[in-house]
Amino acid sequence: MNATTSTTVTCDVSISVDGFVAGPNQSQQNPLGEGGMLLHEWHIAPQGDDQAVIDEWQRAPGAYIMGRNMFGPDRGDWDLDWHGWWGDEPPYGVPVFVLGHQPREPLAVGRTTFHFVTDGIDAALAAAAEAARGGNVAIAGGASTINQYLAAGHIDQLHLHVAPVLLGTGERLFDGVGRLALKPIEVTGSPGATHIKYAVG
Amino acid sequence: MNATTSTTVTCDVSISVDGFVAGPNQSQQNPLGEGGMLLHEWHIAPQGDDQAVIDEWQRAPGAYIMGRNMFGPDRGDWDLDWHGWWGDEPPYGVPVFVLGHQPREPLAVGRTTFHFVTDGIDAALAAAAEAARGGNVAIAGGASTINQYLAAGHIDQLHLHVAPVLLGTGERLFDGVGRLALKPIEVTGSPGATHIKYAVG
Repeated sequence: MNATTSTTVTCDVSISVDGFVAGPNQSQQNPLGEGGMLLHEWHIAPQGDDQAVIDEWQRAPGAYIMGRNMFGPDRGDWDLDWHGWWGDEPPYGVPVFVLGHQPREPLAVGRTTFHFVTDGIDAALAAAAEAARGGNVAIAGGASTINQYLAAGHIDQLHLHVAPVLLGTGERLFDGVGRLALKPIEVTGSPGATHIKYAVG
Repeated sequence: MNATTSTTVTCDVSISVDGFVAGPNQSQQNPLGEGGMLLHEWHIAPQGDDQAVIDEWQRAPGAYIMGRNMFGPDRGDWDLDWHGWWGDEPPYGVPVFVLGHQPREPLAVGRTTFHFVTDGIDAALAAAAEAARGGNVAIAGGASTINQYLAAGHIDQLHLHVAPVLLGTGERLFDGVGRLALKPIEVTGSPGATHIKYAVG
């Protein structure tokens, strides 16, 4: 359970062996950065236990939180024509809270409604916990958002999906988080990824 | 098998979840750096599969290679009174090749003889492969030595022992290695560490 709310906060993230969650030079054309797709092959072409991991990941959350960069490539004032990377039916299906600095009305796309939060990570977590109606809140990414929630002590379970590649450069998870004890709960692996569930703190 | 020799080159290394193999501020008093001992608790107090992992790690090599920093804290001209961190019986028991820039006669300590190599990582590997008499060569560390051998494509198997802690800072593995594909061979875990065996390349 989380210190701020009674909601369990989880974070599933695909990561390279050298600690990157996206490659360098992210852009609208290449949102995961150069080489970033290598981190996600395990759930595009699941092997072994991968499908069970995917099923659990998708089933659990009652709400998501993501950083603005994960919602879209625009900066500053919102491009109101941008409805996210995911087309007409984003893969969330529950409320998604997008961190940012510019107010925007909620945006419904398919079964998913995006809510835009401008008053910080604690406020976003409180709103997401309420919207989750007893379900978990999942921190969706990217690196900066996950790092902020880890550093604040708000993440209860960190599920790393370690893709078997060194990227060499890109968006680094854990930067600025500092010293933190974890507790392994479960480890499984396939040729495509090693899945490690940690309880945090 | 390795491109340079017909010897299999392995590397076992304990690493934090955020990618550090030693803490910051390493010194003669604190050779693993601040918090570095947290990476090694799994083999000081093994649980579950840890002992089997330790047994395999210790059994395999015919020779070791290590960087000068792993042999001792002195720099520049050798302190000839320094015989390594390990007392009268170092835990190697096979020839150990120490990379450095200053010549020094071989040093026998208990069942282990340290050979000091000044002509680079390829020469050290060739000498270690010959000394290993058909056994594996193990790259013992530290981070800089492992990174050099990884970048050169000389490591065949990388065995990561991931301790459940974020250190926040310290000696980072994989810096400068660049893009590299790995292949998971085996994954096991205990409350103390997650053990991932990778084939490299």
